[in-house]
Amino acid sequence: MLSLQEVARFLREHDHYEILTHASPDGDTLGSGYALCRVLRRIGKRARVVNTNLPRDFVFLTEGLEEQSFAAETIVSVDIADEKLLGDNRKAYSGKIDLCIDHHAVNRVEAPLKYVEAGAAANCEILFLLFREMGVLLTPEIATCLYTGISTDTGCFKYSNTTARTLRIAADLLDCGVDAAPINKAMFDTKSRRKLALEQEVYRTMRFSEDGRCAIAAVTLEAQRRLGVGDDELEGIAALPRQIEGVVVGITLREQEPEVFKVSVRSDERLFDASVFCAGFGGGGHAAAAGCRVKGTLQEVAERLQAAAAEVL
Amino acid sequence: MLSLQEVARFLREHDHYEILTHASPDGDTLGSGYALCRVLRRIGKRARVVNTNLPRDFVFLTEGLEEQSFAAETIVSVDIADEKLLGDNRKAYSGKIDLCIDHHAVNRVEAPLKYVEAGAAANCEILFLLFREMGVLLTPEIATCLYTGISTDTGCFKYSNTTARTLRIAADLLDCGVDAAPINKAMFDTKSRRKLALEQEVYRTMRFSEDGRCAIAAVTLEAQRRLGVGDDELEGIAALPRQIEGVVVGITLREQEPEVFKVSVRSDERLFDASVFCAGFGGGGHAAAAGCRVKGTLQEVAERLQAAAAEVL
Repeated sequence: MLSLQEVARFLREHDHYEILTHASPDGDTLGSGYALCRVLRRIGKRARVVNTNLPRDFVFLTEGLEEQSFAAETIVSVDIADEKLLGDNRKAYSGKIDLCIDHHAVNRVEAPLKYVEAGAAANCEILFLLFREMGVLLTPEIATCLYTGISTDTGCFKYSNTTARTLRIAADLLDCGVDAAPINKAMFDTKSRRKLALEQEVYRTMRFSEDGRCAIAAVTLEAQRRLGVGDDELEGIAALPRQIEGVVVGITLREQEPEVFKVSVRSDERLFDASVFCAGFGGGGHAAAAGCRVKGTLQEVAERLQAAAAEVL
Repeated sequence: MLSLQEVARFLREHDHYEILTHASPDGDTLGSGYALCRVLRRIGKRARVVNTNLPRDFVFLTEGLEEQSFAAETIVSVDIADEKLLGDNRKAYSGKIDLCIDHHAVNRVEAPLKYVEAGAAANCEILFLLFREMGVLLTPEIATCLYTGISTDTGCFKYSNTTARTLRIAADLLDCGVDAAPINKAMFDTKSRRKLALEQEVYRTMRFSEDGRCAIAAVTLEAQRRLGVGDDELEGIAALPRQIEGVVVGITLREQEPEVFKVSVRSDERLFDASVFCAGFGGGGHAAAAGCRVKGTLQEVAERLQAAAAEVL
């Protein structure tokens, strides 16, 4: 693996950058992409960000960045653990990444140059250290991109990936002029009416068993149609059942096609191994978060999962 | 006002401390209380915390602290802006506070010695600086109390009161051995089933007007009985309507006695002055958060408020 100094040198020695972000983009991949693009332009390079799409919530990261058209020479990926995650851009860029910068524990990107630090809470944390190494002045716009990536990947410094270094970097970014409160309000304290309706559906269908230690909720295709929510809006719901006090294992069912359910399991890993549980249904994952696919009617699937959970509990 | 050095000296020179926290205690007053109690004991003093009550969620702050019985000589208040906030302890302690440590902009406590710093995001932030001034080693238990106060008073570093100093102090506290993620999960990602039912009631009754820019929700006495929630559990609901995307002014009505409603208004202060709005109903507050009381049936009150909001919008 490269050192940060070597990454810095590489960036100074090349030009005409395309920066790849991952599909279903989040604050960290977009924050990384636009921060790096801004920094490269500041040191006189031509650079642009390549996305699959740009959710409206993140348009502020691009503020003031003009489009640049040029023939790309150097391809950098940010926050991408696997080329599969390039989504629609996979065909165009597969095998062409020159430099991969990432913070995922398992990184499968095939690139001649890689800088991967799994201890970083966010990829933007790595970029902060890189930019400091490069001696680049962080404008409020660059700092805002980095802050957004760090804040979103840590649940606003709430998750266990947040380290003392993470907080100190965030402090330095505030010193660079980030207006953090409006960003955090938009990211964490704002709900669309559709999202709200979706959450209501999850809570409405939630059934508790085992003295409230198991909770199962479902979003059917019918409900999705009724509420008008797309698949990409269903991401957040897996966390909801486990947030109820006393719930050790929270299960959400998403009907993907008639009578085929995508099952997400979230658990208190000290009491319930979600990965072992899902393996029993042909799936897998981590001890606290895993998934599988189960076929049957909603009632059948819910009953099978509930019975299996009851045995463990 | 005292300097931090003078506060430190005062604490070293006195003994037999009672530390007062405010009624309806939150993480900052309790974190302050137990942190100070632990520090005073570490430097050989006798000390105990006086609460109106200790919510179950905060019992972990007292872990390992044994009861001490002694005749109190020195009374310190923490995070208390006004003696009214002593609640049931007001009679016993009114006029007896020797030292007041607080971070509220307006502090009305009558005490011979005061240290008030309104720029601190949390009272625990002040105590961190005080303990450093005193040269006390922060054990994981002390650091946990301070972290809890800072995290809860900033919405986990989400609100505009969070400064670079706040984040650096939090970083130092992690270095002292705080296991922050479980605290934050309990404070921010856990909902009791009653709280959930209450939120559902708020969303169920929510009515939008002015193209979704105004939202009004209500919790009636009947609903409170039906859900079995006490007055103290209603605190958080005022924030909910304003969290919906597009809502400029969110209004919650709490029926306090039949046909008397406590009205909480939360707004985007750039577009709607909640304080001016509430003044029109005999109330007051801040530009972004204000309140008033309005009499009438639920429908009458809601219609009056909605019409008044429509005029402003």
